[in-house]
Amino acid sequence: MPPEPAHAPFDTARLDWLMEAAGLDILVATSRHNTRYLMGGHRSFFFATMEAIGHSRYLPMVIYPRGGPEQAAYVGSTMENWDHALAPFWTPTFTAVTHTTGAAAEAAVAHLRRIAGTGAHIGIEPAFLPADAHAVLAAAFGADRLADATHALENLRALKTPAELDSLRRASELISASMVATIRAACPGIPKHALAETLRREETDRGLEFDYCLLTFGTDLNRAPSDAALREGDILSLDSGGNLDGYIGDICRMGILGEPDAELEDLLAAVDAVQQAAFAAIRPGATGAEVMAQGQAALDAGPLAGFTDFVAHGMGLVSHEVPFIARHSMYEPTDADRPLQPGMVLSVETTAKHPRRGFVKLEDTVAVTPDGCELFAAGNRGWIRAGTG
Amino acid sequence: MPPEPAHAPFDTARLDWLMEAAGLDILVATSRHNTRYLMGGHRSFFFATMEAIGHSRYLPMVIYPRGGPEQAAYVGSTMENWDHALAPFWTPTFTAVTHTTGAAAEAAVAHLRRIAGTGAHIGIEPAFLPADAHAVLAAAFGADRLADATHALENLRALKTPAELDSLRRASELISASMVATIRAACPGIPKHALAETLRREETDRGLEFDYCLLTFGTDLNRAPSDAALREGDILSLDSGGNLDGYIGDICRMGILGEPDAELEDLLAAVDAVQQAAFAAIRPGATGAEVMAQGQAALDAGPLAGFTDFVAHGMGLVSHEVPFIARHSMYEPTDADRPLQPGMVLSVETTAKHPRRGFVKLEDTVAVTPDGCELFAAGNRGWIRAGTG
Repeated sequence: MPPEPAHAPFDTARLDWLMEAAGLDILVATSRHNTRYLMGGHRSFFFATMEAIGHSRYLPMVIYPRGGPEQAAYVGSTMENWDHALAPFWTPTFTAVTHTTGAAAEAAVAHLRRIAGTGAHIGIEPAFLPADAHAVLAAAFGADRLADATHALENLRALKTPAELDSLRRASELISASMVATIRAACPGIPKHALAETLRREETDRGLEFDYCLLTFGTDLNRAPSDAALREGDILSLDSGGNLDGYIGDICRMGILGEPDAELEDLLAAVDAVQQAAFAAIRPGATGAEVMAQGQAALDAGPLAGFTDFVAHGMGLVSHEVPFIARHSMYEPTDADRPLQPGMVLSVETTAKHPRRGFVKLEDTVAVTPDGCELFAAGNRGWIRAGTG
Repeated sequence: MPPEPAHAPFDTARLDWLMEAAGLDILVATSRHNTRYLMGGHRSFFFATMEAIGHSRYLPMVIYPRGGPEQAAYVGSTMENWDHALAPFWTPTFTAVTHTTGAAAEAAVAHLRRIAGTGAHIGIEPAFLPADAHAVLAAAFGADRLADATHALENLRALKTPAELDSLRRASELISASMVATIRAACPGIPKHALAETLRREETDRGLEFDYCLLTFGTDLNRAPSDAALREGDILSLDSGGNLDGYIGDICRMGILGEPDAELEDLLAAVDAVQQAAFAAIRPGATGAEVMAQGQAALDAGPLAGFTDFVAHGMGLVSHEVPFIARHSMYEPTDADRPLQPGMVLSVETTAKHPRRGFVKLEDTVAVTPDGCELFAAGNRGWIRAGTG
């Protein structure tokens, strides 16, 4: 009997289709997010946060020839031999090297020479392939054979599986719970950096990997951690990303040290109304442009016009990813005119910078479902009382 | 009056000397560790753990012309405008761009065109400069003008200031305390991944940023987190890196669920004897080769010969850095024959893989002082009793 066919932990038919459309014969992925995705969630636990070691750095590389998962390979670290011993990687070939871009690239070239036909087009990630590793590939195959695989890979990841949606849902809920605990524990006089540190610990204690905390106190619009202290009557915003298995939860919630007056209640309700208007537009077949237009129309027609931004963007292993539905230079090329599909996930943000009251924002994560959408972490969207924990 | 001279937060005379020796006129640093170092400890809080965003990634760039700190520049993210507003960056020029390698590289080129003479040699970090950003620099100045600045930068960082030594000392002590708490809390049946998670939370609660946990249970030499459970009588090793302001604490400590017998007591004492022999060789003027030889000689003369590895390496913002005193392909070029200097920091590791008893290791951090050396986190180097917390 021939060997059992290799079973990749992702949709190979979709990847093959995307590679064909991009004119790519072989893929060489090197970013943290794409190597993790293509390896079915695996990453080196040793290099989870670090990358530099010795004179060089760790560089994971996943090699995938279009239509040929049985010729796929993973180039990792010698420390990943332990992971491989516990649960073998899906790629039929695994090469472990010692932590230099040069050694990783040479190992990739050796495998590519075995599987690549003359003139094969090799897809790379130009923003995530170090210059010296690129030089090794270019010397072996010619720089003109190296093409950009970024869009093929981000479109591969655009449709989330139920397991991915579950990770995003849980990440959102755990961040929401972390924010409530953090805001309730916030006492008068606490500096911004201490509140950000509290949130980091609350997220960590819930099993998340903390990524960042943007925060405002009072009427100051500066969102960086600092020595600024929380005062009686201050509003505060917490906008944090933390991840579960790499899947990012990214929401914004509002707190207040005291009780909100009618103007503040109305302000947050108006922000929520823009969010709800956008949610109502999210369903399969609707375009991103329609979602953006519906949110913006609600904003323009309401009391927030003139000092408020509305934006939405895809989210998953990367905090802004496909579908790119807003018009912004960072999001070019755009997906604004493509229909949304079930399994896509959007982050929706309405940010009011009120000239007298300060920064009032809600950010939510919404998944496109077969018949509409699902809002993750639907609670805690009103004014959360600080100093009550 | 002319403007006050720019004051760089690092030893510019040393950097100028290292750049001159390497034939570099201008430096363009892009790694997390070197940009953080050159910016006096600053990093973007938003991109502390993430790098990917949108179609591309965040790419910080520090530009420093030899002998010309007043022409230095920092290319960062628009979100760093908030940090800059709170405490202005030391570089006279700060350019904020929106999160693409292309935008960052174009901003760097624009600044370089203003300050670089024709034919200037530009030092880059080939393992930490993305291929697409490299292409932008090469198109502007010619690929033959881009040279490797890796060694100049790692030698700049080799001599730690008192503040850096304090960060490394505190990181070591906090990791030691985290390990004691983790081992004491380890009950029969706990899986390896749960113990690693406990350590992550203990380190986080002490203000550290957790990097990794290598661990063994019983006689198994596999150091990856897994479902393997701790059993009565098992020894266990915890080897973790976590950092404080980027400075890595990296030590290994031993635990046991039960009481060590005489053989285990002797084994750990023998490991410690190798460590102490190496410590005794660490002083200004001694070469790394002498430290390595003294540790290896103690190992070879004792009961651990045949199943034990001894290694030492520099440590700081990178877990293996200058001085590279061991002979290993990853450490080429080596510093083995250069004299140690005060302010250098070594990680010293003795790893016994006993054929019957399992994995017994101590790893310690030692700073070279004017008259010898200082061992950080000197406690908790014996058998720590599990299940007593």
